[in-house]
Amino acid sequence: MVKDLLRRQHIETPSWAYGNSGTRFKVFAQRGVPRDPYEKLSDAAQVHAFTGIAPTVALHIPWDRVDSYADLARHAHSLGVGIGAINSNVFQDDDYKLGSVTHPDPAVRRKALDHLLECVDIMDATGSATLKLWFSDGTNYPGQDDIRERQDRLAFALERVYERLGEGQRLLLEYKLFEPAFYVTDVPDWGTAYAHCLRLGDKAQVVVDTGHHAPGTNIEFIVAFLLREGKLGGFDFNSRFYADDDLMVGAADPFQLFRIMFEVIRGGGYGPQVAFMLDQCHNIEPKIPGQIRSVMNVQEATAKALLVDRDALAAAQREGDVLGANAVLMDAYNTDVRPLLGELRAETGLDPDPMAAYARSGYFEKIAAERVGGAQAGWGA
Amino acid sequence: MVKDLLRRQHIETPSWAYGNSGTRFKVFAQRGVPRDPYEKLSDAAQVHAFTGIAPTVALHIPWDRVDSYADLARHAHSLGVGIGAINSNVFQDDDYKLGSVTHPDPAVRRKALDHLLECVDIMDATGSATLKLWFSDGTNYPGQDDIRERQDRLAFALERVYERLGEGQRLLLEYKLFEPAFYVTDVPDWGTAYAHCLRLGDKAQVVVDTGHHAPGTNIEFIVAFLLREGKLGGFDFNSRFYADDDLMVGAADPFQLFRIMFEVIRGGGYGPQVAFMLDQCHNIEPKIPGQIRSVMNVQEATAKALLVDRDALAAAQREGDVLGANAVLMDAYNTDVRPLLGELRAETGLDPDPMAAYARSGYFEKIAAERVGGAQAGWGA
Amino acid sequence: MVKDLLRRQHIETPSWAYGNSGTRFKVFAQRGVPRDPYEKLSDAAQVHAFTGIAPTVALHIPWDRVDSYADLARHAHSLGVGIGAINSNVFQDDDYKLGSVTHPDPAVRRKALDHLLECVDIMDATGSATLKLWFSDGTNYPGQDDIRERQDRLAFALERVYERLGEGQRLLLEYKLFEPAFYVTDVPDWGTAYAHCLRLGDKAQVVVDTGHHAPGTNIEFIVAFLLREGKLGGFDFNSRFYADDDLMVGAADPFQLFRIMFEVIRGGGYGPQVAFMLDQCHNIEPKIPGQIRSVMNVQEATAKALLVDRDALAAAQREGDVLGANAVLMDAYNTDVRPLLGELRAETGLDPDPMAAYARSGYFEKIAAERVGGAQAGWGA
Amino acid sequence: MVKDLLRRQHIETPSWAYGNSGTRFKVFAQRGVPRDPYEKLSDAAQVHAFTGIAPTVALHIPWDRVDSYADLARHAHSLGVGIGAINSNVFQDDDYKLGSVTHPDPAVRRKALDHLLECVDIMDATGSATLKLWFSDGTNYPGQDDIRERQDRLAFALERVYERLGEGQRLLLEYKLFEPAFYVTDVPDWGTAYAHCLRLGDKAQVVVDTGHHAPGTNIEFIVAFLLREGKLGGFDFNSRFYADDDLMVGAADPFQLFRIMFEVIRGGGYGPQVAFMLDQCHNIEPKIPGQIRSVMNVQEATAKALLVDRDALAAAQREGDVLGANAVLMDAYNTDVRPLLGELRAETGLDPDPMAAYARSGYFEKIAAERVGGAQAGWGA
Repeated sequence: MVKDLLRRQHIETPSWAYGNSGTRFKVFAQRGVPRDPYEKLSDAAQVHAFTGIAPTVALHIPWDRVDSYADLARHAHSLGVGIGAINSNVFQDDDYKLGSVTHPDPAVRRKALDHLLECVDIMDATGSATLKLWFSDGTNYPGQDDIRERQDRLAFALERVYERLGEGQRLLLEYKLFEPAFYVTDVPDWGTAYAHCLRLGDKAQVVVDTGHHAPGTNIEFIVAFLLREGKLGGFDFNSRFYADDDLMVGAADPFQLFRIMFEVIRGGGYGPQVAFMLDQCHNIEPKIPGQIRSVMNVQEATAKALLVDRDALAAAQREGDVLGANAVLMDAYNTDVRPLLGELRAETGLDPDPMAAYARSGYFEKIAAERVGGAQAGWGA
Repeated sequence: MVKDLLRRQHIETPSWAYGNSGTRFKVFAQRGVPRDPYEKLSDAAQVHAFTGIAPTVALHIPWDRVDSYADLARHAHSLGVGIGAINSNVFQDDDYKLGSVTHPDPAVRRKALDHLLECVDIMDATGSATLKLWFSDGTNYPGQDDIRERQDRLAFALERVYERLGEGQRLLLEYKLFEPAFYVTDVPDWGTAYAHCLRLGDKAQVVVDTGHHAPGTNIEFIVAFLLREGKLGGFDFNSRFYADDDLMVGAADPFQLFRIMFEVIRGGGYGPQVAFMLDQCHNIEPKIPGQIRSVMNVQEATAKALLVDRDALAAAQREGDVLGANAVLMDAYNTDVRPLLGELRAETGLDPDPMAAYARSGYFEKIAAERVGGAQAGWGA
Repeated sequence: MVKDLLRRQHIETPSWAYGNSGTRFKVFAQRGVPRDPYEKLSDAAQVHAFTGIAPTVALHIPWDRVDSYADLARHAHSLGVGIGAINSNVFQDDDYKLGSVTHPDPAVRRKALDHLLECVDIMDATGSATLKLWFSDGTNYPGQDDIRERQDRLAFALERVYERLGEGQRLLLEYKLFEPAFYVTDVPDWGTAYAHCLRLGDKAQVVVDTGHHAPGTNIEFIVAFLLREGKLGGFDFNSRFYADDDLMVGAADPFQLFRIMFEVIRGGGYGPQVAFMLDQCHNIEPKIPGQIRSVMNVQEATAKALLVDRDALAAAQREGDVLGANAVLMDAYNTDVRPLLGELRAETGLDPDPMAAYARSGYFEKIAAERVGGAQAGWGA
Repeated sequence: MVKDLLRRQHIETPSWAYGNSGTRFKVFAQRGVPRDPYEKLSDAAQVHAFTGIAPTVALHIPWDRVDSYADLARHAHSLGVGIGAINSNVFQDDDYKLGSVTHPDPAVRRKALDHLLECVDIMDATGSATLKLWFSDGTNYPGQDDIRERQDRLAFALERVYERLGEGQRLLLEYKLFEPAFYVTDVPDWGTAYAHCLRLGDKAQVVVDTGHHAPGTNIEFIVAFLLREGKLGGFDFNSRFYADDDLMVGAADPFQLFRIMFEVIRGGGYGPQVAFMLDQCHNIEPKIPGQIRSVMNVQEATAKALLVDRDALAAAQREGDVLGANAVLMDAYNTDVRPLLGELRAETGLDPDPMAAYARSGYFEKIAAERVGGAQAGWGA
């Protein structure tokens, strides 16, 4: 039963995780990094090949712009993976210095909206069902712009995009406390994203990036609440000790990840309607193993969450047995699920140890040798 | 014009600010502290007498329970003040150890709901139009209770109270990040309060306590957003450096208070529909002067916010002039409004310096001498 | 080898954990709570009886003041436990409203200092080797007092206490970010405590309370740093999601506790020179089981930390293998050490499951029946 | 008297503030940005020309590497400014991916140390008295490297640099909570910087960057404490709402800046021994006006701090008059010092309004027209 559920898990990796990334201080180059969207898909296919649960890849436009999306989708399928969510980008053009869809200048807003609509075109071309919208829009100084008018402008753009969505397509709205805006961010918290999505309708849902909250925020509460409202669309998984550190998911607080997965399952969110996506930056660790490890971390947290004895938990909760109820949860968390997951992999023909298997595969040596010359893909490339 | 608007300002002080308060480590006793609700109202009347803008007093039930609320209301009127919001209290009974309206035991939930309904009775008796609901409900440990069921229980209780509201009555729902619950709080943020209020209807609105947010939260954004949605019901003003420190409003970050007041005004919230209430703890400073200073701090921030040159601001914003727009706001903030406010007071027959006037009045010496014996009012008394 | 080291572990429980505690909003009473220091020691002896590694109990003066400390020590020994650190209390007297040893009034400072010196007398009487000093001293408002003079006054008091210490006695200085002071705390961080201890000499060391830091603080770094400087004296263990929540240690972030224990061991701090003490508030959970669970949580984290393959870790670190080094650490953390600890207990004649064994013992039913009447011990009682 | 002290103020601007900067998401280009260190000095000279109190410019090596530092210094003097602190940079080379002076590989450590020693050579060549050291060194994942060994390596490098310092030269050690390292930062807080500087000796002091602290940290306490210890070497001024936002100083919390300046003055730090340096990023606002505004913000905060009635403050503090003491401080803060500063400027032949005067000067139009072609200077350029 637990194994059946684990077999169905589906974690999407992002194309941009395979390129170089960094902080504002330095982007460290790595060997073998892909030079175009096709090579990114090849790398993503490796993650799926060794974990068995990462069958789709998210694209980022314009970073992954190609002449023929149909061709790109065919390439993906030939590698055993599919195209996942389309991510818009309205933050890397000089025009967007003061915002994109919330910019004070209507011409810039129009340009940004056109890009969002283009992303829906790409969804049509690739068959992608999901548009993920993150806006870096905001201001750095009090008074810089009108907080409320920016909401009006945002609502206008969202409505236009929503109207453009076709059958079976949806938009996910992401929120983030701060960065790159340092005073006001136009979609800073789940409440703002929720209110906009509610206005838009059923095809609009909130996406929770686990690194986008203020210190102390209880993320699993948000998950439980959004599921209750039917408004949780998915996750951008990563982890953080400080701000939006974008470390590997589960690396900073594995107990939190477990609690989040527990609420997903308890709230009926373990299924295709809630997308599990990774979104992190491997600034210093190698890219492909970084993704493999992250997929495994989500899987381990899921396995533990599935092991919670829900009947015993409910009984202890009903009786107000604080220590007993907590102990039921902790019993599952303290279980070492690695043998179970090794077994699961072996049963589906995979190596029980994906990290070691990838290392032995020679793939890294191959790409490090082949991918010489050309511009290595990075944020913005 | 600015003076006209300032003359209309109305800041409500809370009856509990006049009693002893403290931290979990110690409640320090002060001389002259009131021993019953009637004495609390007398103290509150002093704050109004010297500031001219604090004409109502919030009650807290059961702390302010009396035999005849009509008599209490008459007493208030005889002192020149009126009864403001009724605050419920479902956190100081041993039964509420694991929650009140969200408690796992239906009998406790019923008890809590009955108290809330009793508060509406008191509204009827006192003529109060506002019910303020703060729930300390939450859990301390992961697994302790079911996050989602607690939302269902909360929604049920809120609906019952909402149905009970009469013509011209409304409920304000308060949120708080944490304390006294240390893992999950059932209404932890504005998004949660907003979603519940939306379901309830027009008579339910969110109240923003300025000390109830995670570090880094942009409160004025929340203010602007809730005003845009028609869901800002009022403020519980206080200030904090760390957590819910409940210091005098404006003491920790006067610039933030100014920004909040600016958004209130800009968003059309400067009027009777948005209640300005104080809710703070004078643990070490004397109570009445502490309230006078706090009222003055809100007034000063309001005056500065009213002085913002809105046309110049809008022009600079339209042009994307970051430094120029910020400078317009800062010009108002950097203005010393104390002479203006002194004038305003003098024009209405008040002493220009409320703090000095109160000190000279002899009121403190009088209550310190008279209020000897009996139990001094405090939290829970 | 791991078992040998685990057998030597010694975790001290605090007498005040057995009494009622709460937040500023409410202290919830529990049945069977001790009414005097003798009963507290009896409860603490239960924790040792079932875990085998909690052989000492910290006292808090004046909460644990008795006529004869020699008699109290004898009582402890008869129960199989000993007296641990003496904790001073200079925060629960009306005189300390504006501070104790840093108070602007020299008479209050003298009173506070006399109390600290009395605590050393009690160390002499009980044979305790450790004085733990926590000062709630600070201010709530900018300008309230002179930050620097308060440091001078603090240094003066610490010197007097230090001079009074006898052979084999030491003082541990605790720091805390905030609460009950809400603007300046006089010993707010490890740097301040460290600087004072350095001036004082070898008998003065820093104590790390795991709940006393700003959000984002890397506690294991502080542990490593203080051990390098020879200035780590011990821990006050507890856990928190928000501020100084004083939850059971390991309940909020078990991975952090593991990392702390790893640095203790790696830095040579696993031995008698670094005291492992609990300091938490069981506001809603039963006291004795709460302590047993906490002792077990520290033990589990210690076992995992002892299992880290230090050679493999060092090799991966030397090679700059980011993922490999992290994996070595995580392998130990992900191990389920409960079977090992059950074995260890069985080998020393204990029940492998201390929680279940205590529940079966009937001790709670006994004290709930016997401890009726009298004043239940609580903070300040 | 206040004017005399204000006349002596000296605020250093950093050469890198005049080049393009941004976040990891995007560096927005601005027109007229300098293309080499000579042009940066020209821009800095404008800030001094209009404010009269920014006579020196900090250099960043290698960003400001030139063939002849003597020539660069002469150029500076011809423009009316001088060379200030030399800032090292050991974070923008691929070799430093895992650290510089704390890197696990001794060859990288040696390379980093050589750079630091080169910076002292440049101090000799330019006559600079101050070396400012900021290390981005740290780790992203638990286990990645040995926390303690990294301290040993850091101490080794600092000692070598310290030994190399000549007569009249000093080093300032900067700390930072996080970024670009996201798990451990090797110098994360003032305590760490202080402990290293104490070991090194009198020529080593701590520099406080106002944006480098955990949420809630009381920076003025650190200032007061370091001054008491004789270890405050200077400031890197900027402001923040969230993390290290590097906004213009005084823009986010002007009251905090005032409190910091008050402690500087009260602690005897207002003089040449404590360097006032700006270090901020003008990502969206124009560079030169951004610096002018920042210099003015520090000046305004200083003026207010100098206006505090120290005798009245001390008297109220002695009497334990919480509200009275706070009011003395707030009286100074609430004063509008802009007329006083306008007068001061007029007395020294400057325009009373530096922002307007600069705008009228035509300097921006000139550089925007002239500085076309070539690579615009930016972080790392």
